Amino acid sequence: MKQKINVGIIGLGTVGSGAFRILRDNAELIRHRVGVPIDVVKIAVRDVGRDRGLDIPPSLLTDKPSLIVDDPNIDIVVELMGGYEPAKELILAAIARGKHLVTANKALLAVHGTEIHTAARRAGVAIGFEGSVAGGIPVIKVLQEALAANRILSIYGIINGTSNYILTKMTDEGRPFEDVLREAQRAGYAEADPTFDVGGIDTAHKLAILVNLAFGLPITLQDIFTEGITAISPLDIDFGKTLGYTVKLLAIAKMHDGKAEARVHPTMVPDEYPIAKVSGVYNAIQIIGDACEDIMLYGRGAGSMPTGSAVVGDIIDIARQILIEPSRKLPAAPSPGALPIPELQTVDSITTLYYLRLMALDEPGVLSQISGILGRHRISIAQMIQRGRKQGGSVPLVIMTHTALERDVQRALFEIKTLSCVTEEPVLIRVEGEEL
Amino acid sequence: MKQKINVGIIGLGTVGSGAFRILRDNAELIRHRVGVPIDVVKIAVRDVGRDRGLDIPPSLLTDKPSLIVDDPNIDIVVELMGGYEPAKELILAAIARGKHLVTANKALLAVHGTEIHTAARRAGVAIGFEGSVAGGIPVIKVLQEALAANRILSIYGIINGTSNYILTKMTDEGRPFEDVLREAQRAGYAEADPTFDVGGIDTAHKLAILVNLAFGLPITLQDIFTEGITAISPLDIDFGKTLGYTVKLLAIAKMHDGKAEARVHPTMVPDEYPIAKVSGVYNAIQIIGDACEDIMLYGRGAGSMPTGSAVVGDIIDIARQILIEPSRKLPAAPSPGALPIPELQTVDSITTLYYLRLMALDEPGVLSQISGILGRHRISIAQMIQRGRKQGGSVPLVIMTHTALERDVQRALFEIKTLSCVTEEPVLIRVEGEEL
Repeated sequence: MKQKINVGIIGLGTVGSGAFRILRDNAELIRHRVGVPIDVVKIAVRDVGRDRGLDIPPSLLTDKPSLIVDDPNIDIVVELMGGYEPAKELILAAIARGKHLVTANKALLAVHGTEIHTAARRAGVAIGFEGSVAGGIPVIKVLQEALAANRILSIYGIINGTSNYILTKMTDEGRPFEDVLREAQRAGYAEADPTFDVGGIDTAHKLAILVNLAFGLPITLQDIFTEGITAISPLDIDFGKTLGYTVKLLAIAKMHDGKAEARVHPTMVPDEYPIAKVSGVYNAIQIIGDACEDIMLYGRGAGSMPTGSAVVGDIIDIARQILIEPSRKLPAAPSPGALPIPELQTVDSITTLYYLRLMALDEPGVLSQISGILGRHRISIAQMIQRGRKQGGSVPLVIMTHTALERDVQRALFEIKTLSCVTEEPVLIRVEGEEL
Repeated sequence: MKQKINVGIIGLGTVGSGAFRILRDNAELIRHRVGVPIDVVKIAVRDVGRDRGLDIPPSLLTDKPSLIVDDPNIDIVVELMGGYEPAKELILAAIARGKHLVTANKALLAVHGTEIHTAARRAGVAIGFEGSVAGGIPVIKVLQEALAANRILSIYGIINGTSNYILTKMTDEGRPFEDVLREAQRAGYAEADPTFDVGGIDTAHKLAILVNLAFGLPITLQDIFTEGITAISPLDIDFGKTLGYTVKLLAIAKMHDGKAEARVHPTMVPDEYPIAKVSGVYNAIQIIGDACEDIMLYGRGAGSMPTGSAVVGDIIDIARQILIEPSRKLPAAPSPGALPIPELQTVDSITTLYYLRLMALDEPGVLSQISGILGRHRISIAQMIQRGRKQGGSVPLVIMTHTALERDVQRALFEIKTLSCVTEEPVLIRVEGEEL
């Protein structure tokens, strides 16, 4: 049996620092749980001279990641540099040399996951990627192992802390998006360029990884309908409240009749759903399986130590496996294609409930024109609110529909937009929950 | 490599039926995820003739569990009969014959867990026991694997659906305990003899298992201070609401300064804590680790299919391990004693916040007598509510304390009881959350 497990870390940013700290500070605990020590023997960083406040022996540091990938003594390569290249090249090189891999690189896995998993399977090495989705929340392990007996029916995730922080503030304080975004940037909860977070792209990256796991469906970013939160206004959040809904940026994956759905968009969630109560920077993932029914995992979706916890959890998992079986025949991620690959539905063929808000002139006949168009497109109205009166001006007209087909709704809105009584671009927010 | 994994199930009650159904209905899915089929080759039941609506080939059934334990073709024995004997004897016999084991028997593990885990470790077989705590919620795997990098600081669990259902109804509808209990019994949410559930014993069984895992502390039922919900009144729930708290039956485990706490009692939880919002028969476990920070797992804590999901998840885990390593050198549960075993604090040495309700005569000087006693016992008052006026009669006097030592509080209450102005047994409910 091996006397210790050697780890090389590539990248010492937020997550890398957290992982290093945990491996160092909890070394004794981890040694007891694994059976042998886990030793960080090399760390590749861009600038060897920079002080990171981590008190790392200089002999551990290098600015050449290839020294880690090529080191025959290293058992597990931990890629925490992020981005597509050179991360991908380094990962594939490490796999080719028979090294196990741990990564938190969601963008890379969302785009090149199939290629990387296939390479790992062929080489008989393991890939841990718990840190790639929802920080410290163990959603990957739960989907891959704990719920392995289940046919997964649906996943609903709040998996971008920045967006959830902004929506929570907008909801609690009635403030507009731009205002709260600026505050979040000052507080360090949003980046200077927040596009990835508030545009839903980061959420879509993570959803791609979850859909691959849950449905064995190798989708990438381009397959996911993605809409961010930039167009959400306090007015719609407020109408949502009136109707009993909270607006959340959800990653949604569903499977029905052998067809899969994967989309990211602001969603009205019934207030009484546990996921509606997830506030601030917290993340949560609700998973519904045919046997386990509904499960929700909740916690810190980002941050140095929580994501570090996920990364080191993967390292420990792989170390335990290495100690069992030195020849490293590990089952990698479930092979895509092992089960019939379901068909992915495009967003125009989904059916759901819709919240529509039109700004329309306050004059007779308006409602009949609008409801006429909806009716012709097979959209029936469950509830309607017209707030305020404004002779000669526009007032909000809010419509909650019964279940309707996205394509029909889009076509109806296209027609409604051309009405002279409609003065602004209509707002559409998809709604989860039961028919009213 | 083995061409299939053979499973024998002992016991076909609620959980056994669920596990059987899942293995049968999701057989194809499971075969793909494991690599080979998982085959149920024998099922031991008390009454072979009884129709369970499961359409089981009679050749699979036996009334002799020993035929499963002794069958050299069976790889994994699944014990779902419950109770102490003959379950324990069968489990130890199966381990002695080198079989891997899956069980959902919380009572057995809470009392004889150390003996069983030690036997399994010596024999090099695995024990899966995800089904023993919180039904379909994968808390065992999360503690044992996903959070293995963490020093666990505390666990708060709502892990008895019956009690949570009753407390939720009492809270939402303001009805007394006995009334709601009878309704729960009619609805099938409480057993004819509800003592185990409402008395906190079932919760304590599960907490013993969690504490063993989280702290490496081999405690049993007797070590856990246990108080049920039978004495909770709508009045105290109502005062809790006024003060911003929800009453929950919590399993609490904490570790500080190398000392562990393990207790089960009704607890006032701040309304804004996620665990306060867990209602009805749902279970939830909040885990705080030094790296992951706070995580909550939420879901169905009981039931045929959810618990079956946990049991089959364990079977799949072990099957995947068997396929890697035919010589079956599996790491069993973390070895107790591998790390220094922490000291367990008795309940009288804990410190927390307290809600006290006294029924006292509405007359001058009462408050000064009571606060005098509290002061002498180093208990300081954070908040006080006296509701209603009743010349010559008793009115409730509610006191929220600052952090105090349990021993001091008990001594103070002992003195307070002797006051002639105090007309009923005082109510004490421990409180979680920040100092007021």
